[in-house]
Amino acid sequence: MLRARGTSRRPVMLAIAGDSAAGKTTLTRGLVQCLGEDRMTAVCVDDYHRYDRTERKDKPFTALHPDCNYVEIMEQHLQLLAMGEPILKPVYDHSTGELVRPELVEPRDFVIIEGLLPLHTRMARACFDITVYLDPPEPLRHQWKIQRDCAKRGYTPDQVRAELDRREPESAAFIRPQRRWADVVVKFAEVIGRDDPPNTPLSAELLLRPTIDHPELSGVLDDAEHRAMHLKLHRDTDGRPVDALHVHGYVSPEESEIVKKAIWERLDVASGIPRSLGRIADGADDTVSDPLAITQLLLLYHMLDADRRRAA
Amino acid sequence: MLRARGTSRRPVMLAIAGDSAAGKTTLTRGLVQCLGEDRMTAVCVDDYHRYDRTERKDKPFTALHPDCNYVEIMEQHLQLLAMGEPILKPVYDHSTGELVRPELVEPRDFVIIEGLLPLHTRMARACFDITVYLDPPEPLRHQWKIQRDCAKRGYTPDQVRAELDRREPESAAFIRPQRRWADVVVKFAEVIGRDDPPNTPLSAELLLRPTIDHPELSGVLDDAEHRAMHLKLHRDTDGRPVDALHVHGYVSPEESEIVKKAIWERLDVASGIPRSLGRIADGADDTVSDPLAITQLLLLYHMLDADRRRAA
Repeated sequence: MLRARGTSRRPVMLAIAGDSAAGKTTLTRGLVQCLGEDRMTAVCVDDYHRYDRTERKDKPFTALHPDCNYVEIMEQHLQLLAMGEPILKPVYDHSTGELVRPELVEPRDFVIIEGLLPLHTRMARACFDITVYLDPPEPLRHQWKIQRDCAKRGYTPDQVRAELDRREPESAAFIRPQRRWADVVVKFAEVIGRDDPPNTPLSAELLLRPTIDHPELSGVLDDAEHRAMHLKLHRDTDGRPVDALHVHGYVSPEESEIVKKAIWERLDVASGIPRSLGRIADGADDTVSDPLAITQLLLLYHMLDADRRRAA
Repeated sequence: MLRARGTSRRPVMLAIAGDSAAGKTTLTRGLVQCLGEDRMTAVCVDDYHRYDRTERKDKPFTALHPDCNYVEIMEQHLQLLAMGEPILKPVYDHSTGELVRPELVEPRDFVIIEGLLPLHTRMARACFDITVYLDPPEPLRHQWKIQRDCAKRGYTPDQVRAELDRREPESAAFIRPQRRWADVVVKFAEVIGRDDPPNTPLSAELLLRPTIDHPELSGVLDDAEHRAMHLKLHRDTDGRPVDALHVHGYVSPEESEIVKKAIWERLDVASGIPRSLGRIADGADDTVSDPLAITQLLLLYHMLDADRRRAA
């Protein structure tokens, strides 16, 4: 049995699962900016590859397949982090396709685990306080993946499309089934049938499963005043009841502020709403999305709420 | 908390600690040959370096220093192995001085952990059923290190001597203190004052601490017939009582057989004494040492005894 740490509290663990280029890193980066790197550790669990790129060429599966990954070691490392223990995490170099020197990861108060398979096994799921699945429409995800892999990983669009085709059966078999284990399912998408001006942010649809305690929003959203945001009782694709929170890209700052306040005030923390919410791109680009901001705020709410309960 | 494995028993854990070139690998290899790779996992824990060779150049310590190593991760991995769990072990490439792709290690029935610092911390020591410290005279160890590092690691004798000088304060501070935590202290050495023929194997002096249950040898060794082997009550350098078993290099096969039988028979196992005991070199070289064979047999005894108790 591993030692109990004398003074350290166990960290709050948040999982962000989703397929390649579903927006996991963008969402994670925003959350880290809000709480700060001194309080938050972000870990990508896509580095537990059993084989490097060259070795995978001879295998009958892609990097998405659990057999292509040390799933048992990923589970072990998630458990260790959840207990507040450090790990020596494997590192996969995306530019060369090689497995390289591992790195020390020490959990801070909050740990975000993002990746392709963090919710694949029961043992892994048991490590999390909050679980999120990113579920953009497939055409949008394909477009994002082509943009990123061509810009940052040196592929051509045709290569990325071929890879997407090759991965599709394993996406269907192993990635998408994780959606059902998420407390929050996030879909960023264009709203069909609208003719918004250019640069209107994507809308967000958040499915809020009753598996965790969400902030009460029906009071502020049920009335007919709100057009760009609404909360609706909904049956999920599997028939289970969920709340569906829609935040449209064209929401006005005033309207979105109402929801932000409703979420944040229930937390009863001294600090105000974090300022860096909703930034889409890294660095100088100032594009801000209110749907993204509200998504991040909801997840921050859950992390701070879990931390508060732990301290109590 | 980590899961309890349904069916797997926890492995028997043996530590072999000692300074660089003290003979750890030779001893380990012989033990693995006796029980077979299907039952035994050998792990070198000298790969938990925090810095690679280039980074160490700027540091005020050598690779021996605990601050130069992820001691906490080594402890964690020892605990995991002791619980029967796999680890993803870091790998240090001695030829390039680089930290490279980690490797999966799955514990079998018996796990031998050899290295520079496996007994450095209380938490690490608590993982072992049997602990051994290799304690050759320093001049002999220096000679072994020069031979090995020049033949296998591409250094010149002067480079190795300079490195030995550089390491000496840390050997004294961190490596040699582990001697006191060993159940068995093994000293292979030439017997001073004798004029044995060339190729006489080194003698072994085994300090048997009363921290574990050693096989009863006084009955077969106390009588005056035995000249090349004897067992004596002894005070260790710190004044604590130990049994000291001496096996001289010139021991006759008949005489050594008596001790081998006494050790093995107490085990009450169906199989005979392993045949591959006492081989000094790897591969074709057939040099066999009875002192080494008896050392290995004693350690095998303890491993099988611990395994038997666990099964009972």
